[in-house]
Amino acid sequence: MDIQTIGIVSPGDMGHAIGAVLQQHGLRVITNVQGRSPRTAALARAAGIIDVSDETLVREADILLSILPPNRAYASAERIATAVHKTGATLLFVDCNAIAPRTAHAIDQLLTQSGVSFVDGGIIGGPPQPGKAGPRLYVSGARAADVALLQDYGLDIRVLGPHTGQASGLKMCYASLTKGSTALLTEALVAGRALGLQDALAAEFQDLPLFRTMERGVPGMPPKAYRWVGEMEEIAQTFSDLGLPPQMLEGAASLYRFVEGTVLGTETPEQRRYGQTLEEVVSILASSLAERSEKNKPHR
Amino acid sequence: MDIQTIGIVSPGDMGHAIGAVLQQHGLRVITNVQGRSPRTAALARAAGIIDVSDETLVREADILLSILPPNRAYASAERIATAVHKTGATLLFVDCNAIAPRTAHAIDQLLTQSGVSFVDGGIIGGPPQPGKAGPRLYVSGARAADVALLQDYGLDIRVLGPHTGQASGLKMCYASLTKGSTALLTEALVAGRALGLQDALAAEFQDLPLFRTMERGVPGMPPKAYRWVGEMEEIAQTFSDLGLPPQMLEGAASLYRFVEGTVLGTETPEQRRYGQTLEEVVSILASSLAERSEKNKPHR
Repeated sequence: MDIQTIGIVSPGDMGHAIGAVLQQHGLRVITNVQGRSPRTAALARAAGIIDVSDETLVREADILLSILPPNRAYASAERIATAVHKTGATLLFVDCNAIAPRTAHAIDQLLTQSGVSFVDGGIIGGPPQPGKAGPRLYVSGARAADVALLQDYGLDIRVLGPHTGQASGLKMCYASLTKGSTALLTEALVAGRALGLQDALAAEFQDLPLFRTMERGVPGMPPKAYRWVGEMEEIAQTFSDLGLPPQMLEGAASLYRFVEGTVLGTETPEQRRYGQTLEEVVSILASSLAERSEKNKPHR
Repeated sequence: MDIQTIGIVSPGDMGHAIGAVLQQHGLRVITNVQGRSPRTAALARAAGIIDVSDETLVREADILLSILPPNRAYASAERIATAVHKTGATLLFVDCNAIAPRTAHAIDQLLTQSGVSFVDGGIIGGPPQPGKAGPRLYVSGARAADVALLQDYGLDIRVLGPHTGQASGLKMCYASLTKGSTALLTEALVAGRALGLQDALAAEFQDLPLFRTMERGVPGMPPKAYRWVGEMEEIAQTFSDLGLPPQMLEGAASLYRFVEGTVLGTETPEQRRYGQTLEEVVSILASSLAERSEKNKPHR
């Protein structure tokens, strides 16, 4: 397989950074920013990613990487299927989203029916940064080996096996621990502050290696909370499908939904006006909690 | 206040070890093992704790420490209230259980009506062991300072304030992180194995400091899972009362209920036949999951 052009939908936090790596390694990278935020469009431009129509995207991309907030994965695949129908393009589609194996199978079926080759993917680790080891892109499916050719263009690709559900399943298990525990810590700290016990709790946590490995995760979380809601719901689906209790991840989704609904949810990674420290984030969340509970009090 | 005799209800894993410390520091320690397991009775004997009736317990104990699985805390307080009614004894009662502030308030009310002085407590850290720093017993309430006199007898007591709900609240916040994250990790590993992805998941986790601070917690958990079910439910209640989502802790309760229902739930800390390593615990749980899902399949 000869690779010259990569499509990326959509060039957000992770997508634009992966696009930049591929572009710097000599590939042409295209996208369609229609319907995306001005911030995403700006990120794409800065990464040297070319804006085209959906039709051009599917016609010219040798491989299309879908990198989206998980709750948009299916709808975006439908849009791609429509463009493929219109153009009769051949396409290798890699779903890199944090979705349940069940959702990956649904997208696989949708796209395979449209004549697209589907590969399941899962990204573990943060967006690539200059001079640092990048994230791992796990892939599984009949054509996973073709996706692994992107190794030659700066990505760290790991082939997991021949089946849809393997790469997405690995991502689900991994993220359940990392993002689930960030939700647990956030909730513990907000509860401690709401109870007026923040100093005693901080003193106990300081002696706990578990806490010290986690504390940096909380201030970095709010700009991503909106995206993590859907991810936690996909993990809950994954666990439920396996016969395991889904509520821990449903609760993490609720917690991130709460964060998204506060002033912290209005921030982007580039622009943080509120909540730059653990202390500030917890304080803002505890205040929001108090306001919300004040609003919900019955009138007298 | 002059302290000579301490009552402990019940001398289980934590209770007998605290009783042993007090006894070694010159106090007389009494209990009533009626209705407890033969194991608890044996632990009490080995710790030099004297078995008496409920009436003698409340008459002779200067301070009574309630240290129980959380779902037994209220019923045990009722039994103590009955004995106090019968005997007209005066008593300082310390609820050391992992219960919600709401539950602590209910027990406070029950006992105060019976003429008992109530102090809220919460234990953070494992049972005292020779040569190691013991757990912290946090206390709050009007007579918390009297309980702090037990500092002179080998316990680490921390007075949090004058209100019921402070010590129990601190314990809830702390345990939500430690035991909640153990549940998350257990579920992630069982899901990974159920999906056949255990090797890839283990490789990713090995590079994660978060995982390395947690992994020892999983093999130690099964003999305590039965007790943690109630504790997770009390934390869910605590969070719900604060307006925070309770589902993460409800899910942790479900996970520990699942563990309790497997062969792992039949083990005691002294006698481990199954699941001595992380690998064994996860493997047994994944097999139980498969059996359970096999049973639940519709007949053809």
